[in-house]
Amino acid sequence: MNSHPPPNYEHIDDQMVKMEVNLDDISGEWLGYVMDILFESGANDVFYTPIFMKKNRPGVLLQLLCSKKNINQMKEILLKETTTLGIRYYPLTVHRMERQFIKVQTEWGKVTVKQGLSDGEVFQSSPEYEDCKEIAKRHNIPLKKVYEQVWRALAEH
Amino acid sequence: MNSHPPPNYEHIDDQMVKMEVNLDDISGEWLGYVMDILFESGANDVFYTPIFMKKNRPGVLLQLLCSKKNINQMKEILLKETTTLGIRYYPLTVHRMERQFIKVQTEWGKVTVKQGLSDGEVFQSSPEYEDCKEIAKRHNIPLKKVYEQVWRALAEH
Amino acid sequence: MNSHPPPNYEHIDDQMVKMEVNLDDISGEWLGYVMDILFESGANDVFYTPIFMKKNRPGVLLQLLCSKKNINQMKEILLKETTTLGIRYYPLTVHRMERQFIKVQTEWGKVTVKQGLSDGEVFQSSPEYEDCKEIAKRHNIPLKKVYEQVWRALAEH
Amino acid sequence: MNSHPPPNYEHIDDQMVKMEVNLDDISGEWLGYVMDILFESGANDVFYTPIFMKKNRPGVLLQLLCSKKNINQMKEILLKETTTLGIRYYPLTVHRMERQFIKVQTEWGKVTVKQGLSDGEVFQSSPEYEDCKEIAKRHNIPLKKVYEQVWRALAEH
Amino acid sequence: MNSHPPPNYEHIDDQMVKMEVNLDDISGEWLGYVMDILFESGANDVFYTPIFMKKNRPGVLLQLLCSKKNINQMKEILLKETTTLGIRYYPLTVHRMERQFIKVQTEWGKVTVKQGLSDGEVFQSSPEYEDCKEIAKRHNIPLKKVYEQVWRALAEH
Amino acid sequence: MNSHPPPNYEHIDDQMVKMEVNLDDISGEWLGYVMDILFESGANDVFYTPIFMKKNRPGVLLQLLCSKKNINQMKEILLKETTTLGIRYYPLTVHRMERQFIKVQTEWGKVTVKQGLSDGEVFQSSPEYEDCKEIAKRHNIPLKKVYEQVWRALAEH
Repeated sequence: MNSHPPPNYEHIDDQMVKMEVNLDDISGEWLGYVMDILFESGANDVFYTPIFMKKNRPGVLLQLLCSKKNINQMKEILLKETTTLGIRYYPLTVHRMERQFIKVQTEWGKVTVKQGLSDGEVFQSSPEYEDCKEIAKRHNIPLKKVYEQVWRALAEH
Repeated sequence: MNSHPPPNYEHIDDQMVKMEVNLDDISGEWLGYVMDILFESGANDVFYTPIFMKKNRPGVLLQLLCSKKNINQMKEILLKETTTLGIRYYPLTVHRMERQFIKVQTEWGKVTVKQGLSDGEVFQSSPEYEDCKEIAKRHNIPLKKVYEQVWRALAEH
Repeated sequence: MNSHPPPNYEHIDDQMVKMEVNLDDISGEWLGYVMDILFESGANDVFYTPIFMKKNRPGVLLQLLCSKKNINQMKEILLKETTTLGIRYYPLTVHRMERQFIKVQTEWGKVTVKQGLSDGEVFQSSPEYEDCKEIAKRHNIPLKKVYEQVWRALAEH
Repeated sequence: MNSHPPPNYEHIDDQMVKMEVNLDDISGEWLGYVMDILFESGANDVFYTPIFMKKNRPGVLLQLLCSKKNINQMKEILLKETTTLGIRYYPLTVHRMERQFIKVQTEWGKVTVKQGLSDGEVFQSSPEYEDCKEIAKRHNIPLKKVYEQVWRALAEH
Repeated sequence: MNSHPPPNYEHIDDQMVKMEVNLDDISGEWLGYVMDILFESGANDVFYTPIFMKKNRPGVLLQLLCSKKNINQMKEILLKETTTLGIRYYPLTVHRMERQFIKVQTEWGKVTVKQGLSDGEVFQSSPEYEDCKEIAKRHNIPLKKVYEQVWRALAEH
Repeated sequence: MNSHPPPNYEHIDDQMVKMEVNLDDISGEWLGYVMDILFESGANDVFYTPIFMKKNRPGVLLQLLCSKKNINQMKEILLKETTTLGIRYYPLTVHRMERQFIKVQTEWGKVTVKQGLSDGEVFQSSPEYEDCKEIAKRHNIPLKKVYEQVWRALAEH
């Protein structure tokens, strides 16, 4: 992977694009794979929307966000891994919050919490899913219980 | 086509089933075709819903309504025309309104209106789409204008 | 409204039905209204799914849950307020948790929390949306902050 | 609310933006609230689309339309009321029809109809939903019947 | 129809726009018609997405792609054939593959295959749906079987 | 996991149920996890549909298929891992094709192909996704190319 994740301080990024492809001749099975490949290759986000296309076709709109310098790399993957004959894109601006990572304690160990700040104030506190999932699996407890303990720890933080 | 459309008088039909198939390895292009074939072969209705399947796959849920006596015929089409390895179904009851067809006059000619009645009272009055479309195309006028004239004629009916 | 909400103790209800209607000739505007009317008239739940119907039509599948004794009342509303000519339904079983309501304290006042229990154990604790919304509006604070305080109070409960 | 609705004459507005946020860690309950708040705070439109996100997550794409001068206010609400760590946006052009409001008579009272005009010609005639709903509720009649009378009155207008 | 299809060689087209309309007061029946009309009038693509709009309305987002020189023509159709009071649009860039058409032999006759090339290399080989459908109908065989023979022929090509 | 996969010969299974839960107070993040857990615990299938719920809430309909003997186990997971207060279910019949597994040769090694048969005739031939994915990853080639070789091998089979 040769992508550079965006920096952690609050900033306005005006070097981003959204790329879009309409697909009506590819299976869902392949699309699950394509999403993984695009993320691994530096897409900032990838997501699918169901769309109604001509001739009664239930199709899929693939959307991805990447920085301008990654356009060609994304195009190459879309060309190789999907069935598309055309790729469209347009620039957009992204306002990203400052991000910081803190650790909170649960009875099963520490969990990372990603926080989103603007002007130095914390607005979001989001327990890291992979940490919580790992605890839930290892201790055979509901994921819900893990999150509840993290929220409690955050409340007392 | 060997299906028998349901009768036009109000009745409760307890001989219907819904059949369902989950599809994640077929393209939208084929599904547009499958819908047509199922209707031609006697399905009372066919429709698709986007579903989120395992491994990040955007899939499609095919649902169709048919009478019990058509189950085997529908199975055969699903088997031949889709990629499924299993078909599920369950019985349901359908309350159908009485249906009658009237003609109303527009400046471009007559249009059939399908009416739905219950206990002899008219509840629905639905201009026949194909009639309206044919007029719109022939006279090169918006479909909307054709419907508006039909509604006006119905109001004065 | 003449519906009877289900009792609060844990039970299996085998007197429920799901009713379904496919709609391709009604606007979203009307459907927003229909949902309200159905709830007011005793539907236990009402929800819409986008469906792909014949002739390239983006349609809507209306589903509602009600007890068998309300079938005729629901039919009457669907007949009067939608454009349908047929209504289908099938029985289903519902396992409902025991429900209890507790109050927790926030800095802006008490909030009701609905709890779901099975075999006497609390599995769900769901802050009442209308309580939280009312506080958020009155004090001009984010809804998110109200929920966070409720969760904290629950943790210390 | 400090928004200024667009003027009623036909015009091209090139001062609009679309803002977008992808959400996979927020409940539908909160999103219903967020939509209301955004409208109250001057968004011209707000709508949600279901999206398929990574790790099998059914997410939601929030899209809103606002004028450039409202960007910061919208950002603030999204920051406070949702769980997002980033907000993207891009400019777009809006062609708005001329709008005029007329009154038509039904047997239950007058109803406002919003009309859309281009080059002075009426293309759209849309009964005001809130007027029709109010009549339907007050007189306990189907909403459908109210619209039908408005359409008839428009036809004779 | 007065549209000019894009050329067959690989190119970057920066004269395209996406137009969008949100619709909550139109039926699916009309929307099926609108799609056809837009394609016939030179839209490069048209598709619908289900959206959640205010007041619990299941609405539809119409998106279409066209070249800048067709904007006015598309606006006119949207104005006449839908219920919208506003149309939004923004420019985008489209990278189109080189396209070439080859014929392959099946036991039921020749089928056209559209190929997509980039830098002279073939990336996509897509059997023409209408050819395959015509064969399937004429010979009363599953569409799937026709595609399988085309794929086999391509493999041996 | 204590589930027993259905047998490989063609049969009608009348011991299946569909379970359904409507969710409007859970995030997509958790739902991705819940799907995995349900599959691991013996669900035959699990899938999500976007639904429009009351109060403008974009919700999710969880549907799962399991055999009757697994109902209680599925209930327990839904209770622990989601936020639901009720679970509904109804019986359905599943017609399953005979399944057999063959191996075909590609230049990168053998790939398993799952075949679906009815009355002894092969209707479906579906390359195993995990095999193809593994080859694509190991050899750094498009997944599409792997499938194409498998189809070719099947054609010559």
